[in-house]
Amino acid sequence: MRRAGIDVGGTKFLGVVIDDDGTVLTELRRATPVGPEALVEELVLLANDLGSHDSLGVGVPGLVTRTGILRSSPHLAGVEELDLGRRLSAAFGAAVPIDNDATCAALAEWQVGAGRASVDMVMVTLGTGIGGGIVIDGRLRRGRNGFAGEFGHMVVVPDGVECPCGRRGCWERYAAGTGLAHIAREALGDRPRSRMLELAGGSVDLVRGEHVQRAASEGDPLALEVIDRFGRWVALGLVNLANALDPEIFVLGGGLAATPDLYLGPIRTWFHELLYAPELRPHPSIEFAQLGERAGAIGAAMLGAHH
Amino acid sequence: MRRAGIDVGGTKFLGVVIDDDGTVLTELRRATPVGPEALVEELVLLANDLGSHDSLGVGVPGLVTRTGILRSSPHLAGVEELDLGRRLSAAFGAAVPIDNDATCAALAEWQVGAGRASVDMVMVTLGTGIGGGIVIDGRLRRGRNGFAGEFGHMVVVPDGVECPCGRRGCWERYAAGTGLAHIAREALGDRPRSRMLELAGGSVDLVRGEHVQRAASEGDPLALEVIDRFGRWVALGLVNLANALDPEIFVLGGGLAATPDLYLGPIRTWFHELLYAPELRPHPSIEFAQLGERAGAIGAAMLGAHH
Repeated sequence: MRRAGIDVGGTKFLGVVIDDDGTVLTELRRATPVGPEALVEELVLLANDLGSHDSLGVGVPGLVTRTGILRSSPHLAGVEELDLGRRLSAAFGAAVPIDNDATCAALAEWQVGAGRASVDMVMVTLGTGIGGGIVIDGRLRRGRNGFAGEFGHMVVVPDGVECPCGRRGCWERYAAGTGLAHIAREALGDRPRSRMLELAGGSVDLVRGEHVQRAASEGDPLALEVIDRFGRWVALGLVNLANALDPEIFVLGGGLAATPDLYLGPIRTWFHELLYAPELRPHPSIEFAQLGERAGAIGAAMLGAHH
Repeated sequence: MRRAGIDVGGTKFLGVVIDDDGTVLTELRRATPVGPEALVEELVLLANDLGSHDSLGVGVPGLVTRTGILRSSPHLAGVEELDLGRRLSAAFGAAVPIDNDATCAALAEWQVGAGRASVDMVMVTLGTGIGGGIVIDGRLRRGRNGFAGEFGHMVVVPDGVECPCGRRGCWERYAAGTGLAHIAREALGDRPRSRMLELAGGSVDLVRGEHVQRAASEGDPLALEVIDRFGRWVALGLVNLANALDPEIFVLGGGLAATPDLYLGPIRTWFHELLYAPELRPHPSIEFAQLGERAGAIGAAMLGAHH
């Protein structure tokens, strides 16, 4: 079987064709067009350009219902209530499963990535925001409406930092990319002597996640402290998920997974510190994702076999 | 089939025999004895006293492994690493499934209570602490080690109020019985004129949950405010679980379920307020449990069919 999958991102489409082992045979990229009609057209074109395949699946950012309707997407302007499942199924004369991009990434990491051979896995994608997917008792679980895994909007600080979603204190304001920069700027307010500030051209307001990462890699003490505090925020959300779901493994993906060495130590240490009854249970392992930016497309290709 | 179930509480055992419809045919209570050996003996005696039955299941407070070992229990003095499953199976010459008491309650409410006919249900027991159980895709889910549903120790306030578990800011410090009293005492600090204080004999330190409930039932404005604030804390944890799991129904049980009218309004209002993307999804319903204090024993009796 040759299975095609397309991951729709805010800036680009990534399409792959995989074989039965999940090995990528073909890979194509396209810029994401603007508007729902152009989006559907470009998806059809890209699927054709991927060459002959036996099935197609698509991952999209945002809230996707179990029947493949994209309710809304913060990263796709003008896209609302788009019945992508029906549109693509009509275009190809065959069912085209659609799911949330982080759910697709979870599926791929579970099948052929860091969560291979696990039965109870939680994937958390740490990027600009936080998303994820859940495997329980050997199956991907989507929830009643398909919206399970919206971990980024778990409230971890009542009356905390404002979130673009309209609420306050959402986990992704602290434990995703923007959280890292925020912690760094706060730390620099007290102690401005840091390589982070140099890398940002001397302006605290311009300090971003990559400056923290680079400074920490170079051994800057304040940057390492910032990474530690950030690791605590990541761990706090993981602990909440562990107390609720008791998984055997957490797989961390998204942009931050590009530099796992920096984060893994602090996250694991804080996880142990914050978990309920840590001495009475085997701890879930915490690993970084293995499939990189292709995870979403590979998982999309696998949707047909897991829907 | 006549199925027997025993719910082991900190102060009493409650044993039932149910028929295939979950109707209670027999009910017995005993004081909880002290120490692990007395506990096992008393369980055997009570099971025999329940009369002829085809199966037995037992619910216990604390962390229970999937093979029926009670790792530890804050409510049963001296009980640690008690292999209750093996002990009782040996005594009766048949497998005796053991599970966490809140998990048993969830099973009962799902099968014959407020969650009847649901496929994705989360039960949350609001008592002295908070426990719970999870049904996903029509099955009870226990997690890798059997410890799923320990909702009370999800951290909702980093560096918050100390919890006996050794960590800080656990949900059960805010949204269970002790949380209600805590909120009331705080409110009384600013505005001491309240029926709550009268009911507590004039001492702020003696104000407990039942005083708040009674004062609120009588229409005391401050008590109603306290209930509203408390409802927000309950809703916050439910929202976090909804963002992660997207269930179709929450069932709220435990001691607070005795006066649902007081709490349901505030909890539902705050849930809507705090949920991510509330306008884009059907909301889970939020209902109070229907089986009262027998839920644990009824669910224990049902374990055999769901293990």
